[in-house]
Amino acid sequence: MKKLMIIGSVAAGTSVGAKARRNSEDIQITIYDRDTDISYSGCGIPYYVGGEVADLDDLTPRNAAWFKKRYNIDIHTQHEVESINHQEKTAVIRNLITNETFMDSYDTLVLATGATSFVPPISGVEAENVFSVRNIRNAGEIRNYVDTHLPKTATIVGGGFIGLEMAEQLTQRGIEVTLVERLPQIMPPLDQDMAARVAEHLEEKNVSVMTGETVKSLQGGKRITSVLLESGQAVETDLVILSVGIRPNTELAKEIGVEIGSTGAIKVNRKMQTNVPNVYAVGDVAESFSLITGKPIYRPLGSTANKTGRIAGQVITGEDTEHRGILGTGIFKVFDLAVAQTGLTEKDAVEEGYTIEVLHNIKPDRPEYLGGKEMVIKAVADRRTGKLLGAQIVGPQGVDKRIDVFVTAISFGAKAEDLFHLDLAYAPPFATTKDPVMYTGMALHNAFNEKAPLITPQQLIRETESGEAFQIIDTRSKAQFEKAHVKGAIHIPLGDLRNRASELNRDLKTVVYCNKGVTGNAAQNILINHGFKQVYNLSGGNKNYQHVVKNF
Amino acid sequence: MKKLMIIGSVAAGTSVGAKARRNSEDIQITIYDRDTDISYSGCGIPYYVGGEVADLDDLTPRNAAWFKKRYNIDIHTQHEVESINHQEKTAVIRNLITNETFMDSYDTLVLATGATSFVPPISGVEAENVFSVRNIRNAGEIRNYVDTHLPKTATIVGGGFIGLEMAEQLTQRGIEVTLVERLPQIMPPLDQDMAARVAEHLEEKNVSVMTGETVKSLQGGKRITSVLLESGQAVETDLVILSVGIRPNTELAKEIGVEIGSTGAIKVNRKMQTNVPNVYAVGDVAESFSLITGKPIYRPLGSTANKTGRIAGQVITGEDTEHRGILGTGIFKVFDLAVAQTGLTEKDAVEEGYTIEVLHNIKPDRPEYLGGKEMVIKAVADRRTGKLLGAQIVGPQGVDKRIDVFVTAISFGAKAEDLFHLDLAYAPPFATTKDPVMYTGMALHNAFNEKAPLITPQQLIRETESGEAFQIIDTRSKAQFEKAHVKGAIHIPLGDLRNRASELNRDLKTVVYCNKGVTGNAAQNILINHGFKQVYNLSGGNKNYQHVVKNF
Repeated sequence: MKKLMIIGSVAAGTSVGAKARRNSEDIQITIYDRDTDISYSGCGIPYYVGGEVADLDDLTPRNAAWFKKRYNIDIHTQHEVESINHQEKTAVIRNLITNETFMDSYDTLVLATGATSFVPPISGVEAENVFSVRNIRNAGEIRNYVDTHLPKTATIVGGGFIGLEMAEQLTQRGIEVTLVERLPQIMPPLDQDMAARVAEHLEEKNVSVMTGETVKSLQGGKRITSVLLESGQAVETDLVILSVGIRPNTELAKEIGVEIGSTGAIKVNRKMQTNVPNVYAVGDVAESFSLITGKPIYRPLGSTANKTGRIAGQVITGEDTEHRGILGTGIFKVFDLAVAQTGLTEKDAVEEGYTIEVLHNIKPDRPEYLGGKEMVIKAVADRRTGKLLGAQIVGPQGVDKRIDVFVTAISFGAKAEDLFHLDLAYAPPFATTKDPVMYTGMALHNAFNEKAPLITPQQLIRETESGEAFQIIDTRSKAQFEKAHVKGAIHIPLGDLRNRASELNRDLKTVVYCNKGVTGNAAQNILINHGFKQVYNLSGGNKNYQHVVKNF
Repeated sequence: MKKLMIIGSVAAGTSVGAKARRNSEDIQITIYDRDTDISYSGCGIPYYVGGEVADLDDLTPRNAAWFKKRYNIDIHTQHEVESINHQEKTAVIRNLITNETFMDSYDTLVLATGATSFVPPISGVEAENVFSVRNIRNAGEIRNYVDTHLPKTATIVGGGFIGLEMAEQLTQRGIEVTLVERLPQIMPPLDQDMAARVAEHLEEKNVSVMTGETVKSLQGGKRITSVLLESGQAVETDLVILSVGIRPNTELAKEIGVEIGSTGAIKVNRKMQTNVPNVYAVGDVAESFSLITGKPIYRPLGSTANKTGRIAGQVITGEDTEHRGILGTGIFKVFDLAVAQTGLTEKDAVEEGYTIEVLHNIKPDRPEYLGGKEMVIKAVADRRTGKLLGAQIVGPQGVDKRIDVFVTAISFGAKAEDLFHLDLAYAPPFATTKDPVMYTGMALHNAFNEKAPLITPQQLIRETESGEAFQIIDTRSKAQFEKAHVKGAIHIPLGDLRNRASELNRDLKTVVYCNKGVTGNAAQNILINHGFKQVYNLSGGNKNYQHVVKNF
């Protein structure tokens, strides 16, 4: 009987084994993991620390006995694979409980060794109140520390998914949280203007957000009492959470000549095979690739780990299947907001050389008379092909639905115009008659064919500052105009625009706007239909403009 | 200047006008409507009656002045178009306030005359406590009646969307509701097994559901006190709501020779043009067509009205665009459930001659440790092409998201196998690592290629009754088996199946099952991999089977 050895028993490794067994009884499957836990939900850890998940067992529903019974798979935890001899197809394994070593052999090897939290090389990281967020063991340690020491303040280093989720959960436990991020923005997978919306919300919820700040050292000895920043500032703290990113565990791979890709993770083909015959890599230790650009990307995530594990299990048992790539989709909840993104950001798309159209679409998820609340959709599309490239959404409700519609549409190569035609489910408790996704497609499509070109606040500010002349028209009410308006704007309410169009210069570049974009588009159409040459609608209206002015 | 005349000012008519104006200032746009209200949300009416929407103004946010100011469109409500002379391109209009008539002319005519609630020809429908649910005026009348007469009981005739929404809303006002439906099931757009899940929930919420019952007459004179059924039963009632369907208002269309389609609504091409030159039809008075079969269907809905209106507005102003058809998507909330469907049901697909695969997939919307709750997805796919044909979903949360992903996928011609590859947004507050939609695609795909064929409870019961021999294996725990199991099943828990497979007959048709389907699939794989010839997994497991046994 052929032997399949899998190293790593979290999401990807167990998926390989389960799928291989579903396809075949004629294979011996063994999994080794140096850690204690199996198939756990790492993404659930912040909710355990915060107390929303009562019991660690909820995050580790399956044990070795379950896998043996269901799949006839032998899982050995606390067993570290120390070395591999791929010529001989053998491995030396250390039982971490007894400290004994033994040898095992394989026909096929799967590297599902995952990734480890990166600990920055600064002093103080070994202190008792400094934690990473990575596995079930340290989830227990963090919660235990919080429960027993009742810290009043915490500093989270790193403003990615886990950092933000931890910020929320610790705040909900009554702890005053400071978030320190090295980059100029939190959440690097988002464009800066969208990340700023999240940062604003954190501040509203009493989380202090410090961007562009690097931690120099942790002060206080055995128990850290302050975080010293490169800028010289010191943040007093009772607890430090490090979430500055994770690094794929590629040591074993390198030892046997497995090629590492440009992202630092293991390079694999679409069948999850490495360059070394009979060696596969899956989950957080392997690269993925972009469904849009085809280029390698590294986005370690439980859903992708499950997916790549299953694909490897299929390939190993003779199925003809391939990984199709990812969009790098991500979502997280932080206090009252859901934040999601998929595909390319504006920044990504520019770097990739696309000629893009960018729209900020501000719309309620359902009618306001049934509790609808506004979300901001930032969508990026390729002007040359009309195809959608990516979307970012921030809002209190209905965000997960819209991002998944974008994901599905982009996966099938949708053009912006296709969105309008979708027969999405409409009833007032769930959506507006034209869903925000449909509006996004309509506005992008109009912008492409020059019927209704868009300009982002950043573009307008940049071009104005570089001396470009615009006539800028605020089409809202007088009260709205007086409260806050775009620099240099004149006020002509929409109702007067048809009559007063003759006051304006048809040959000058014109920008119109309203509060969120819809009336701006109506104004834009009026001027275009009156023979104005270049009329732009300000993307996301005054609301988006003021947000940008405030944050940049 | 060319003149565009639109008859009807609700969703479709106003969409035509708004889009035409966005595209052109060189057209005179006039809308006539015999009713009093403009551009209202008919779908919001149940929520006004129930009090969730406080004010009727919330459902009618726009008036004629708003349209004049924004779009330079003249809307005349309480103006009925009495006759049209299409040779002359003139119409005679009666001002219903002054009772005067006058003539107006047009170059292009749009029929957006909508539909009217069908009132069954039985005695008693004119009584003061009998209402249809159709427009803003009678929304007010119903609520007013409920507020002033405080009925203790209500009978709703018709178990479609609006009937169910009214059942919920009246129950929430403390009224005891009886729902009477002529067909053997409520909600005809659903398959009977899925509709039965909704009926069960209504009963749990104290709504009495009577299917297969026709109303003979309403008894009681000026104020109805009981509903007499053809079966002889009488239901005592303080209020009657008629929601037995709506009929397109095609009278004017017929007068000028506009062709009516097989559905009874106006026949249009993909540009929303009727057979009469320069006459368009949009919204609830027009047919649509199925994106899957290409055949005409009539599914009056606000979202489609908006869509077809906009398309007509584009075509009239010279844009090259076409309606792409609908999936007949629908969704509604009833008490704690959301119920949604798109594409073809099992019944539809069989009628259309497809060779289908049917799956019942029971899965939580997100991890149970963060409040996930089970939904039932019934998916139908075409065995010959592998393509998805339709989905029906019933569940307490996350239903609207999944149906919209199905809608998007089906719109792009997705095969079942494509669903697994979607990079949907995963984080524990929103989804499971493999989303229910992905599982649906995986299970259907496995069923297609005979790796894991499915059998529905109905098929199993039918085939067993017709003398087909099966060995049926319950793979759950002994306690579960003893509580309730499939008729004729023997008990072999999954953990014992590998060892005990030799007890079974490899050549006999075999059905395996668990509680919901996943373990059944694991058992199925074990037997197939042990050389069993025909092994079916029971779709939706014992849970679905018991539901079917109970209801049919």
